[in-house]
Amino acid sequence: MSTDHTAALAADRAHHIHPFSYPGEVRAGRFRRVVERAEGVYQIDTSGRRYIDAVSGLGCVNIGYGREEMAEAAAEAMRTLSFHPTFWECTNPYSARLVEQLQRLTPDNMQHFLFANSGSEANDTAIKLVRWYWRLQGRPGKTHVISRDMAYHGMNLLTASLTGLAPCHPQFGLPLPGVSHVCAPWSWVEGTAGDDQDFGRRAADALEAEILRLGADNVGAFIGEPMQATGGVVTPPASYWPAIRRICDRHDVLLIADEVVTGFGRTGAWFGQETFGFNADITVMAKGMTSAYFPVSAVALNARIGEALLNDPGELYHGYTCSGHPVGAAVACMNMQILEQEQLVERVRDTLAPAFWRHLHALEDHPLVGEVRGMGLGAGIQLTADKVSRAFFPEDSDVDAQVTGHCYERGVIVRDLGADTVGVMPPFVTSEAQLDEIFDAVRYGLDLTLAGLNRA
Amino acid sequence: MSTDHTAALAADRAHHIHPFSYPGEVRAGRFRRVVERAEGVYQIDTSGRRYIDAVSGLGCVNIGYGREEMAEAAAEAMRTLSFHPTFWECTNPYSARLVEQLQRLTPDNMQHFLFANSGSEANDTAIKLVRWYWRLQGRPGKTHVISRDMAYHGMNLLTASLTGLAPCHPQFGLPLPGVSHVCAPWSWVEGTAGDDQDFGRRAADALEAEILRLGADNVGAFIGEPMQATGGVVTPPASYWPAIRRICDRHDVLLIADEVVTGFGRTGAWFGQETFGFNADITVMAKGMTSAYFPVSAVALNARIGEALLNDPGELYHGYTCSGHPVGAAVACMNMQILEQEQLVERVRDTLAPAFWRHLHALEDHPLVGEVRGMGLGAGIQLTADKVSRAFFPEDSDVDAQVTGHCYERGVIVRDLGADTVGVMPPFVTSEAQLDEIFDAVRYGLDLTLAGLNRA
Ligand SMILES: Cc1ncc(COP(=O)(O)O)c(C=O)c1O
Ligand SMILES: Cc1ncc(COP(=O)(O)O)c(C=O)c1O
Repeated sequence: MSTDHTAALAADRAHHIHPFSYPGEVRAGRFRRVVERAEGVYQIDTSGRRYIDAVSGLGCVNIGYGREEMAEAAAEAMRTLSFHPTFWECTNPYSARLVEQLQRLTPDNMQHFLFANSGSEANDTAIKLVRWYWRLQGRPGKTHVISRDMAYHGMNLLTASLTGLAPCHPQFGLPLPGVSHVCAPWSWVEGTAGDDQDFGRRAADALEAEILRLGADNVGAFIGEPMQATGGVVTPPASYWPAIRRICDRHDVLLIADEVVTGFGRTGAWFGQETFGFNADITVMAKGMTSAYFPVSAVALNARIGEALLNDPGELYHGYTCSGHPVGAAVACMNMQILEQEQLVERVRDTLAPAFWRHLHALEDHPLVGEVRGMGLGAGIQLTADKVSRAFFPEDSDVDAQVTGHCYERGVIVRDLGADTVGVMPPFVTSEAQLDEIFDAVRYGLDLTLAGLNRA
Repeated sequence: MSTDHTAALAADRAHHIHPFSYPGEVRAGRFRRVVERAEGVYQIDTSGRRYIDAVSGLGCVNIGYGREEMAEAAAEAMRTLSFHPTFWECTNPYSARLVEQLQRLTPDNMQHFLFANSGSEANDTAIKLVRWYWRLQGRPGKTHVISRDMAYHGMNLLTASLTGLAPCHPQFGLPLPGVSHVCAPWSWVEGTAGDDQDFGRRAADALEAEILRLGADNVGAFIGEPMQATGGVVTPPASYWPAIRRICDRHDVLLIADEVVTGFGRTGAWFGQETFGFNADITVMAKGMTSAYFPVSAVALNARIGEALLNDPGELYHGYTCSGHPVGAAVACMNMQILEQEQLVERVRDTLAPAFWRHLHALEDHPLVGEVRGMGLGAGIQLTADKVSRAFFPEDSDVDAQVTGHCYERGVIVRDLGADTVGVMPPFVTSEAQLDEIFDAVRYGLDLTLAGLNRA
């Protein structure tokens, strides 16, 4: 690729409507960052400046950027089988091998796999399967889906409706009917802070109340991220998920775990369900499946749901052109091979997460920090205007953005998640020295933000 | 990749729920085809048998399989920038260059681009943008979307609702509310066969009647494929699309062209709108954008819609993790470069399509053939039980599948599209000799099927 990007950037500015951006800023040419290349944990911009990407892109680049094995796996598959539809009972060795590897590496409650391209699409597929399942059980009325506040499940009309972040709805007149939200297990706001087992059960009870309000005959499924990533890294106490599982069982409601972020090691186990102690009926995975080198997502079903669907004698009228794409499959397999060979999940669990949490806990007595929460290599730093009353900053304050802005000056990318929360989610190949750099920048950002607040 | 696929295929059989397949067949290990590699127009199965893929995968592999330039472009981008989110006003040279190339190669009514991963996702995005647009105009009630019978717009809950193929709905309790279907411009059934301009206008009038029935204040958009690919290659007469455009204008209804199949050359022009003489407000593209080497899709807006959205001072709360993926962008750019350098669109228009249609017209006097229809390098062969009354074969007959089965014996993949229609849609790199082979097989398939029918 030529190094003069002037014409391309002019076109981008004039003609590209960027996701989750202010169109006016782009049009005015105020790009936040033009990234030319990326390697390991670094993004490198067109001026040659290097940034530690302490959010793994969008919580997805778990094995780090630009790995040669991945480029070679993709190129080899593209030369050999650049595309193949797995429609009409056809298959190919790449797609088949992906199924073999997933079956081997995922927990036992994941027995049957369907493929899609994005997390949004896999969640949408999961909801379609819920509807199919209940129709086969003779209960076609069970279509309502319960989600949670602060949830992020994607951006198509249905999954954006499931998403519980308020700003995602009004632009498009969402949510669609047939979706509702219960409270997130956000103990900082809803309970006592921290590891409050009683609060975990109470938060789960909100699901039961909603099922009873709607009538279990109308409710098809509950969907939740084991740990809510985009929505403030809300992380439930250990009592929460087992209670949710019991409630779903009691009312015959399917439990969908959206493991788009937590899948493939983020919490220190292959899947968040292992960390949080439950088994979903349906598991959705995406990002970490390929470390975002190629768009691949999947829906995994447990034996009960899978067998019920497979015993339908008809044809399945569902699928995407690129479902189970052979090149995506090769890339996903290489990603899993790297995770295994380099023991990256174990590294998160045994080495990186402990160091990460030492850094995080050391922030707890900072005047701006209310709590740190998360699991494994994912954390939210909750800022607060008052550590005792847990007050938020005024609506129009941007204190989390100030912190991330200062980190950026120090060459570290962290993310303002809203609700006064700063998200940190580094790649699994981050070194301990790089963790030090990340938290030096975070502390610098907190101090400067505090100084600014004190001056004001 | 090792050549012993036994374990992988066993896993596939036991654990992979294939798209658009009979799960029971897969479970029983009755794979229709296990494809090991593909090159040019050929798929090669594990026994070494070669098939001409006369449907371009799923109407997508336009430049042919396994091209070295594509593998190299992908590998180069993966090494350099294996992922980069274009969120938060960030960009990168790959994504920017994709915008530059699209802007250059698409018609003038495509001014602003958003990216997604699949055709389904891009159509869903288009509908979200319609909702946003009308809300900005102070007309939030305009949310209903009108589609057509026989349409294929994708498989998520909303786009599967837009899809007008009857079998795609009951499994999942679709369509969702807020969607309706008008008749397809299927002159074989609804009008006089062939190029009937008067029928084209009458078919368009069905849209106006539906808008009036619903009230234009409730209708946000009409969506249609310029030529309906999956749904029988239903191809409207020249009068149809200009009439649809006038009706949309008259009632302030946005016109979405789903060019997922027709985009990037299939009809002998870069976009089907050029072939069929109209300008959509919103254009959706996918498959041909990368020849399915990588999942990339886009929504293009005309200046009127684009400016309206861009003038919203707020942030756009929409996007997918892999929107505008740098590797996908590099692959799409290389695909466009190949189309341009090898003048493949011109080749379709000037050389291949004329030869293709000579072959097709030569089938018209076959006793089984009712009509041949289509445009450019896409055709449907309508079989009929009676050429005069245009009778269909009985519901449980599978005459189109019989023809495709016989073609397969001859090493040629064509597709049974239902409604007694055989679809043919070869890659743009098919040679004239390969076209001869394809139609030798089709004629063989027709003759054998006819002989079977006569015996019965
Ligand atoms: C938990 C979760 N689910 C689903 C999605 C949607 O994935 P995608 O952006 O690939 O559609 C995301 C994306 O951030 C996510 O974090
Ligand atoms: C016209 C049209 N639109 C949309 C789609 C959906 O695209 P995808 O399968 O990539 O979701 C298809 C797929 O066949 C199509 O033919």
